Amino acid sequence: MQTFDVYILGCGSATPTVRHLQTSQVVSFCGQLYMVDCGENAQLQFTKARLRPGRLEHIFISHLHGDHCLGLPGLVSTCTLLGRTTDLHVHGPVGLAQLFKPFIDAFSPPDMSFKVVYHEFNTDRPQCIYEDQALKVHTIPLTHRVPCCGFLFAEKEGVAHMRPEMMERYKIPYDKVNDIRMGGDYVTPGGEVVPHRLLTTEAEPARSYAYCSDTCYNPSIVPQIQGVNLLYHEATYSVAQQEAAERHFHSTTADAARIAEAAHVGQLVIGHFSARYLDDTLLLREAQAIFPNTVLACEGLKISVA
Amino acid sequence: MQTFDVYILGCGSATPTVRHLQTSQVVSFCGQLYMVDCGENAQLQFTKARLRPGRLEHIFISHLHGDHCLGLPGLVSTCTLLGRTTDLHVHGPVGLAQLFKPFIDAFSPPDMSFKVVYHEFNTDRPQCIYEDQALKVHTIPLTHRVPCCGFLFAEKEGVAHMRPEMMERYKIPYDKVNDIRMGGDYVTPGGEVVPHRLLTTEAEPARSYAYCSDTCYNPSIVPQIQGVNLLYHEATYSVAQQEAAERHFHSTTADAARIAEAAHVGQLVIGHFSARYLDDTLLLREAQAIFPNTVLACEGLKISVA
Repeated sequence: MQTFDVYILGCGSATPTVRHLQTSQVVSFCGQLYMVDCGENAQLQFTKARLRPGRLEHIFISHLHGDHCLGLPGLVSTCTLLGRTTDLHVHGPVGLAQLFKPFIDAFSPPDMSFKVVYHEFNTDRPQCIYEDQALKVHTIPLTHRVPCCGFLFAEKEGVAHMRPEMMERYKIPYDKVNDIRMGGDYVTPGGEVVPHRLLTTEAEPARSYAYCSDTCYNPSIVPQIQGVNLLYHEATYSVAQQEAAERHFHSTTADAARIAEAAHVGQLVIGHFSARYLDDTLLLREAQAIFPNTVLACEGLKISVA
Repeated sequence: MQTFDVYILGCGSATPTVRHLQTSQVVSFCGQLYMVDCGENAQLQFTKARLRPGRLEHIFISHLHGDHCLGLPGLVSTCTLLGRTTDLHVHGPVGLAQLFKPFIDAFSPPDMSFKVVYHEFNTDRPQCIYEDQALKVHTIPLTHRVPCCGFLFAEKEGVAHMRPEMMERYKIPYDKVNDIRMGGDYVTPGGEVVPHRLLTTEAEPARSYAYCSDTCYNPSIVPQIQGVNLLYHEATYSVAQQEAAERHFHSTTADAARIAEAAHVGQLVIGHFSARYLDDTLLLREAQAIFPNTVLACEGLKISVA
């Protein structure tokens, strides 16, 4: 099975502390890396996680608050120094390019060896913003103080695997394999029809990861993230700070857990912790009381989407 | 004696590594903090050093390369979150405001509780860019690929101290103290002239710190930094990479040490190390061979200017 992992580079909220850095993650899928948000320090955490910059071609920015995107200029600068030649695609809400392009250009040499390509989206409806042979990325509209969305990384349905012993028994030529894997039967030279289901084993179930930060409690996202294997949901505040959460358009631990429960996700990872909490285990206990399969994000954590 | 210390927040060159962060320092003088350069990560290192943001009112940027200033937007954002009310003065080469103001403004709330005040200078001649009762900061013209200067932090000459036993013997009224400390004699009610030198002890010698980064070997700075107590001089490369140093307008360890030697400084601290060196002690040995009282910069180091 192909790799599908999430690396937490930073999972604090806006005020950085010695315990948590500003938000950034990397989704590793089939050998490619996709960065989600890029707070200050993302490039250093990327290096610490021993991830390879050459594998990173797409960065997705949830919203234009500094703690989710101010690492971008430094990351691009470092790519320049490292002699990058592949274009870097940055996806973000409308306004991204107007804000970042002049600033990033000012720190780039005129003969820069790659381009930064900006892709903007509206955050008011789910839309597909990236697709390749194996993966689709959709936006998830969130509710925050500024236009904001999460991202749903969905593996495409796989195709069935050939059973080697059946290949051998019927001497199936290789040029028939693709058709059979896609659902076809095999007709022997003697005219015998061997059905697809006998020749193959089922594809693994398609996996998915949903990233939801920053947002207030917003159950309207539940249908879109229904049944994902892994949900990252912000839990900036403890339930004791419900009022602050509502005022700042953030979520509590209970909000995050209720979303996970309603969406029947496989596992919940909470993050974007307010700087006020010196011990995150309080937050974990609150979330687990509602959704037991919850873990705490922390810098350096790698979680498999499975 | 008043505090006069330098905190190294980051002392790597442009490519950040797990060993060294991008350039930033804080000069602590008489209870006030002055930041020198502000590479990405400066705000976090500032917090780790347990420095107080309220004491920081002036930031000096040597040049507009990203590794010396990309921490600025995040630092300002965090000041906003912390409810800062005192204006923050950012001093830098011409072009600073045009580059940073629109970008920083975009991440600031309309009702921001303090102003960022930009002060620009030409880097082609030494000039005083900050002065208060006890301290002067001058630019030091450096030679780099873009307009660049260092900074000379010079304590002002102090005034003599009153000798308590002489105050007592001559019953000197407090309103005469300032005149006497500034050099005056004391005339008793009976007409006796008691000379200044009998009434006072000498002021401590004024201290100074010179920051020189980034620059190629440039002996024309020697007269300006003559006799400083502490010199930070970049030493991006080992002597074996002399050619690379010249090509990139940087210095080698030997360049830094020769400047220190020619200027008869008290102590040299070298930094801005290229990412290629896994062990900085090679760099230290090279510099010490020319200027023995050399130390290596490292993140978290605090050096007294004495």
